[in-house]
Amino acid sequence: MSLIVQKFGGSSVRDAERVRNVARIIAETYLQGNDVIVVLSAQGDTTDDLLAKAQEVNQKPSKRELDMLLATGEQVSVALCAMALEAMGLPCVSLAAWQVGIRSSSVHADARIKKIDAERIQAELDQHRIVIVTGFQGVDRNGDITTLGRGGSDTSAVALAAAFRADLCQIYTDVDGVYTTDPRVVPNAKKLDEITYDEMLELASQGAQVLHNRSVELAKKFRVKLEVLSSLERKPGTKVKEVTKVEKSNIAGVAKDTSIARVALVGLQHNPGVAFQVFDLLSKHNINVDVILQSIGREDTKDITFTVHRKDLQEVEDILNQHKEALRFDHLEPDDSIGKVSIVGVGLMSNCGVAAKMFEALYEAGVNIQMINTSEIRVSVLLDEEDVNRAVKAIHAKFFDEN
Amino acid sequence: MSLIVQKFGGSSVRDAERVRNVARIIAETYLQGNDVIVVLSAQGDTTDDLLAKAQEVNQKPSKRELDMLLATGEQVSVALCAMALEAMGLPCVSLAAWQVGIRSSSVHADARIKKIDAERIQAELDQHRIVIVTGFQGVDRNGDITTLGRGGSDTSAVALAAAFRADLCQIYTDVDGVYTTDPRVVPNAKKLDEITYDEMLELASQGAQVLHNRSVELAKKFRVKLEVLSSLERKPGTKVKEVTKVEKSNIAGVAKDTSIARVALVGLQHNPGVAFQVFDLLSKHNINVDVILQSIGREDTKDITFTVHRKDLQEVEDILNQHKEALRFDHLEPDDSIGKVSIVGVGLMSNCGVAAKMFEALYEAGVNIQMINTSEIRVSVLLDEEDVNRAVKAIHAKFFDEN
Repeated sequence: MSLIVQKFGGSSVRDAERVRNVARIIAETYLQGNDVIVVLSAQGDTTDDLLAKAQEVNQKPSKRELDMLLATGEQVSVALCAMALEAMGLPCVSLAAWQVGIRSSSVHADARIKKIDAERIQAELDQHRIVIVTGFQGVDRNGDITTLGRGGSDTSAVALAAAFRADLCQIYTDVDGVYTTDPRVVPNAKKLDEITYDEMLELASQGAQVLHNRSVELAKKFRVKLEVLSSLERKPGTKVKEVTKVEKSNIAGVAKDTSIARVALVGLQHNPGVAFQVFDLLSKHNINVDVILQSIGREDTKDITFTVHRKDLQEVEDILNQHKEALRFDHLEPDDSIGKVSIVGVGLMSNCGVAAKMFEALYEAGVNIQMINTSEIRVSVLLDEEDVNRAVKAIHAKFFDEN
Repeated sequence: MSLIVQKFGGSSVRDAERVRNVARIIAETYLQGNDVIVVLSAQGDTTDDLLAKAQEVNQKPSKRELDMLLATGEQVSVALCAMALEAMGLPCVSLAAWQVGIRSSSVHADARIKKIDAERIQAELDQHRIVIVTGFQGVDRNGDITTLGRGGSDTSAVALAAAFRADLCQIYTDVDGVYTTDPRVVPNAKKLDEITYDEMLELASQGAQVLHNRSVELAKKFRVKLEVLSSLERKPGTKVKEVTKVEKSNIAGVAKDTSIARVALVGLQHNPGVAFQVFDLLSKHNINVDVILQSIGREDTKDITFTVHRKDLQEVEDILNQHKEALRFDHLEPDDSIGKVSIVGVGLMSNCGVAAKMFEALYEAGVNIQMINTSEIRVSVLLDEEDVNRAVKAIHAKFFDEN
């Protein structure tokens, strides 16, 4: 008998039919003799609908109240899923994050899970009940509801799998696995049978929507075996684990991200620690910064360029302009029409031909590279947003069609 | 400075405009220097929408999961109301019943409030925050969400007013007070300036929708001053208190209830304790029984007739038929097309002309009386459902037009 955590995203539970479909998958797993913990997102467009309701009464609601509002979405999902399992005669119980004891930090809208209490879920599993938990949310030390931000439900699932030492954590989505690139851009993209945590991490953080990097980081840390698969087609998905079986001669995939914006701080005075000041300031506002580049400017000044999530751009501009005197820069150059394309693969940087092959593909496609950024297993380039899909096609063809 | 509890029903918060309207009422009370605890119901049709969603996946969901589902309705209301108050620059916090610590029994869908923790709300009031609490719900000793059944939000408000010794508990609805009868049936029905707890109690339990008897009972027990008033028209409503100022020569009002059904148990054997057995059985299933009448049947048998809420009729039939052998009755006669009309007034039964006046009105209107039931301050008659409105008009005219 195994313990399996199964997470279903918003599109997998978007209406009654889909909820019943999810119940069938859960039932099958349970009736094979497994303990099952289920984690659900809010149904389909629920979160957007709730946000629209909030906007109607307050253009800038506090994040504390927004969390209180949004948390109802997952609660509806888990109750409906429990009812669907009840209709099949299966013992089950739905639990909100505060009932489980998913303890989180107090950063509303972007909380981090600190600890998961074992008692309630263990008691339910001991009674052989299927346990259905609200994803995306936690409860802080004051007893206030928090939400976990982007990738929150995946993170809830992996955290539960880690806390209960689950044998497998299945992430059900509307795609059937991890592909070598976005199949909507490149129709002959290939599904991967397996991928390492590190590769998945780079793919996730470089814009592959299938799994959020927070959940992959957590899975890697606690050695949680992940599987990404479709809730609609019943076939094996992509396994994410420590080491993949075969030594690969190729990259794992090509990722794109068009949800980013670039900010250039131009004409910074040459005072020491200015980079620290800038990024410390942004971090205190919970702004995640990605690619950073520092270069020499004209006349003994320097420029710092970095990327942020596009939704944060206005806030970043506001924060930096408020501190213009302290930071002593000349002006800001924001750009929200850029994109990022990355290749990811274990051993990539130790194989010197790989990066060159990527740049060759871009050159042949006539795509201009604005910035380059690399990690041990990844090469990313910043481009004009309008060049992104052309770049992905060219790079994918170069790596997957030519050999 | 006073502490005021304000409760707003579902129609008072049904959309963004109404939520803002409620926020203005709350703000006015708060800015006059009062502490304010707000209790909200779910928005407009939310509860019905959620019930429909449940029906789609399970015709008979467990009450535990239904409570989990329905409790999201009030949580949406309190978050939105808090956001509307934030937009006005007022300090506030929304709290679900489990966050307040509204401790209840475990009877899902019909739980009773046992205790309200003071700490969290007191801490928020000490910070001069407006506290906005989900009505209709509680949390049981297992940490499961319960709902309080009919009249639940009114009960939440009165219980909070009692726990915090509020100076006033205002129940805002879509009518502007308590009327001598339903103004939709009798257009010249009069609004009462004040009414005693006992009169309100009888009116409420006899079908006047404006306040549920549970909340009035609780208010009477803890001497909570109630006021029923409109959230749309800003004018005084009806005050509910221990003693009303003037000695009245008339009844307080005429109530009707068409949500009831009658069940006759025909041909019961003459074994002692059969009535106890029947009603003990129903009470164990949490079925509320109203008017009870026992009469002699044919050939040394007897009949027991009683009324229940119409929604419970099928369940009552099922329960009794399951125990037919033990109870030894011949057959059941259910009737779901009956109604009840009542007159209520302090001193009514000690004024012997009053009941006669009611029967006279019914006789003149040609309405047939099926059963009669009285209390110290009330006379109720059971009628064909189709006679109910005609009966109300005739009785109201007799008591309020003729003198």
